[in-house]
Amino acid sequence: MKSDSAHIAIREDAADEVRERRAIGWRGGDSSERIEKLAVEEPLEIRLAGRRFTLTMRTPGHDDELAAGFLFAEGFINDASELGEIRRVRGRKGAPEPNAIDIILNVPADGLRARLKRNFVMSSSCGVCGKTSIDSIRRRVTPPADSARVAPATLLALSEKLRAGQRVFAATGGLHGAAIFSLEGTMLAIREDVGRHNAVDKVIGYALTNAMVPLAQHIMMVSGRLSFEIVQKAAAAGVPILAAVSAPSSLAVELADEIGTTIVGFLRDGSFNIYTRPDRISGT
Amino acid sequence: MKSDSAHIAIREDAADEVRERRAIGWRGGDSSERIEKLAVEEPLEIRLAGRRFTLTMRTPGHDDELAAGFLFAEGFINDASELGEIRRVRGRKGAPEPNAIDIILNVPADGLRARLKRNFVMSSSCGVCGKTSIDSIRRRVTPPADSARVAPATLLALSEKLRAGQRVFAATGGLHGAAIFSLEGTMLAIREDVGRHNAVDKVIGYALTNAMVPLAQHIMMVSGRLSFEIVQKAAAAGVPILAAVSAPSSLAVELADEIGTTIVGFLRDGSFNIYTRPDRISGT
Repeated sequence: MKSDSAHIAIREDAADEVRERRAIGWRGGDSSERIEKLAVEEPLEIRLAGRRFTLTMRTPGHDDELAAGFLFAEGFINDASELGEIRRVRGRKGAPEPNAIDIILNVPADGLRARLKRNFVMSSSCGVCGKTSIDSIRRRVTPPADSARVAPATLLALSEKLRAGQRVFAATGGLHGAAIFSLEGTMLAIREDVGRHNAVDKVIGYALTNAMVPLAQHIMMVSGRLSFEIVQKAAAAGVPILAAVSAPSSLAVELADEIGTTIVGFLRDGSFNIYTRPDRISGT
Repeated sequence: MKSDSAHIAIREDAADEVRERRAIGWRGGDSSERIEKLAVEEPLEIRLAGRRFTLTMRTPGHDDELAAGFLFAEGFINDASELGEIRRVRGRKGAPEPNAIDIILNVPADGLRARLKRNFVMSSSCGVCGKTSIDSIRRRVTPPADSARVAPATLLALSEKLRAGQRVFAATGGLHGAAIFSLEGTMLAIREDVGRHNAVDKVIGYALTNAMVPLAQHIMMVSGRLSFEIVQKAAAAGVPILAAVSAPSSLAVELADEIGTTIVGFLRDGSFNIYTRPDRISGT
């Protein structure tokens, strides 16, 4: 990053955007081990003059631009001259923390307080972005049932059922879908929303208010990608098998490892990958 | 919604998920007017016992499930019995507000305060979800330059350039991309991220720290859909032409109307739609 002002580009963070992971690929009735590349998802804690300000789940790289663009696009700074310095937070031993940066703004303290007050009142509706510290993002988990089992043929049929249920998507091309299925592949609920977290919250809300939680013998499927936050929401409801039409992130898979959720990705066109807990897919 | 507890299902909000809008379709060198169906995006203000709690951009419908699922998945309530009542906020004349609901929880006040404190500290990293009131979501806009013009052939070439630049997406299938182009179609910056807002913040941060803001003679393109928040972020940077591989939401188009941004959607496979300000696309 070249720059005409005093703020410092962070140079050391170019690398960690892809992480390799063993997965089981299911293609044409056969399963085989393969190496999958996952997009890296990690939290970034943004501090203002040393104070925790916000947290975002992001792909590492260009963290300085992310912070500068966020502050500008959200109205906290008016131009580049108000960016004083952007630097990595140093850990106890002086080593740079890969997931925390600190920003000094050229804005008087009372002016900054007024901007904070104007822009952010309290709380958040997405899983992580209302949090300010990395420690605060892990939440309650209902341990998923070991006993849940699904047959590959049942899984393969889900993407078509999900798509067929996405009524508004069919009309507009513009919505995310989330659905709950029985282990036999019967769709029990589907919800659509412009926000992917909202679609998941809606089906969980449906399950909660219909006395179906914990969803111990169920599959949840989403139309897009699987993030850390969606794994976390599913885990709150006790979902043992979480499937997606597209790719999981690195942190989604790592969290599922920890919790014991089965993650199935790229479930479409007659094939899928299993990233975690393949014992719940019969025959693997 | 059937339910075994006392909370009230909201019944009146089933309809408004799709909105029609005139657009100009560009196909095989010809443009023609057409009616496009847009997924509806509207803010939902969620109140707890009358107090503003959070705001989310959502597709109307199943607002009660959205609120219940959100509160549960985020750890504010432990089970359905803590949901007391969910009802529409009433406006001054007693009419229900379509975009505001109020929830009474069966949780003691001090217990609720502790949960709020544990879960949400302050602020947010996404454009809207740290806000608690609908009034607070509109922000600073740099009026986009009327003079910016792009040729259809230049636009048509952008989606291939964007895709070619999405290095990590190519490896993982798991990332959003955002890029800035000159009006002649030269890609000036591209950034990828697991979060679509982050990808946009990163390119805006790049532009800001390289003295390119306002982006008055530029095109911004994103790999997915166009939401209200992305239009707002682009408007903060003065972007006159905003293009997307996929669909815009209703509110994205309405905000662009108001600001004067040109919105191009479904830009792929040799065609696109123009939703607003077609005068910036030469020949239309």
